[in-house]
Amino acid sequence: MLRIPSFLKEATDPVFAFNKEIIDATQDLCVAYKPNLAFYESRGASGWLSLEKTVSYIRERYPEQFIIADAKRGDIGNTSSLYARAFFDQMDVDAVTVAPYMGEDSVKPFMTYLDKWVILLALTSNKGASDFQFVKNETGDFLFESVLKTSQKWGTTDNMMFVAGATQALKLEEIRELVPDHFLLVPGVGAQGGSLQEVARYGMNDQCGLLVNSSRAIIYASADKDFAEKARQAAVEVQLEMEELLLEAELL
Amino acid sequence: MLRIPSFLKEATDPVFAFNKEIIDATQDLCVAYKPNLAFYESRGASGWLSLEKTVSYIRERYPEQFIIADAKRGDIGNTSSLYARAFFDQMDVDAVTVAPYMGEDSVKPFMTYLDKWVILLALTSNKGASDFQFVKNETGDFLFESVLKTSQKWGTTDNMMFVAGATQALKLEEIRELVPDHFLLVPGVGAQGGSLQEVARYGMNDQCGLLVNSSRAIIYASADKDFAEKARQAAVEVQLEMEELLLEAELL
Repeated sequence: MLRIPSFLKEATDPVFAFNKEIIDATQDLCVAYKPNLAFYESRGASGWLSLEKTVSYIRERYPEQFIIADAKRGDIGNTSSLYARAFFDQMDVDAVTVAPYMGEDSVKPFMTYLDKWVILLALTSNKGASDFQFVKNETGDFLFESVLKTSQKWGTTDNMMFVAGATQALKLEEIRELVPDHFLLVPGVGAQGGSLQEVARYGMNDQCGLLVNSSRAIIYASADKDFAEKARQAAVEVQLEMEELLLEAELL
Repeated sequence: MLRIPSFLKEATDPVFAFNKEIIDATQDLCVAYKPNLAFYESRGASGWLSLEKTVSYIRERYPEQFIIADAKRGDIGNTSSLYARAFFDQMDVDAVTVAPYMGEDSVKPFMTYLDKWVILLALTSNKGASDFQFVKNETGDFLFESVLKTSQKWGTTDNMMFVAGATQALKLEEIRELVPDHFLLVPGVGAQGGSLQEVARYGMNDQCGLLVNSSRAIIYASADKDFAEKARQAAVEVQLEMEELLLEAELL
């Protein structure tokens, strides 16, 4: 049941009950929610139902929030169109994370929806990032650099962002040279060990341009009755740290 | 509703009703079923339910069939573990297609399950395959060749296969040199234009080693009352063609 506090397990839908309390406790502190599809799919159709209810809840209650389905999808064009339908029509999130391996026709169908976003994997925050993302091509570019160079032609700064992991903060400077104006989604702060200061120093552009993600450090701050309150405290800490960095950068 | 014959739309679960008839009509002609997750997800939680029912139906009725969730998943280790749980525990399929972009820790969790398989994307059948899979590295290998060389160390010929598209039949010969003993899942025959003869010529090993996929050409052979019968006819054609190729190769 994935670290849901035990007293919630008697609720009709424990995961939705948990999400609702976390959302209510953090909605004034964050700019986006990023549900991770695997956590829902691991419970099958009923997991999908919990996710659908969660997305609807945010949509109705906090319509200004941006919702990212962290799904890492990507398939041949006609199949990617159906994934886009799943997330943008059926579920109405704002953005989906997409893997670049299958190239242009696997990514573009997500960009045919008005006001929706593709967030393409470029440099991820995990150890396995080194296996292929750091393979150098004939002209000296790493694969993640090829991905940034090639894929930015497929969309605009208004329908495309890139994943750039916080655990590779030094690389954010190079990424910013290649995509100065795109938003970056930065996972890896918190549980995975990335530093927010470094992410801001190397990754910010003149409008901020960062969506920094901290998930487990917030939602699992406590497994007791006070989980929502503790989640709020953890979120406040990140928010204050980010506020200070935005003030330093004269963006607030 | 994805080309489900209109008279089925009055069934409680039209997609399951359709699948059941297709399965009953083709089960003696094929060795595996490969549901494509996007088609189910595009209908949300109720789509997942249709898929769960379909997988259970095959498991109970035709236990010898191999079931592949064509899901193209892949994420950081802890998340991939949950995708593995979704497909191998919650749903009980035999194999999942996985994208290699995030490297070793995104792939290995799928191989911790006994008698289950990862089918890793190497060379895909779509146009976008040329964007990154054909990027050459410093030592002259295409990315799909790096993927084959590196990833085969992560598993064995008993828990790992590779996707190699039929639309790149000439490349199958090179792929066979790199992975002589692994099964290859070959999509792209039929609707996408690949030729079974060429796939057999360049991709077969001395035990066959091929899972050739034809989906749309079979399941959408007719949209009328005779859809199951027509699907069977289409499947018989592919099966006879494959039988002949197996006889030529002295594998039957």
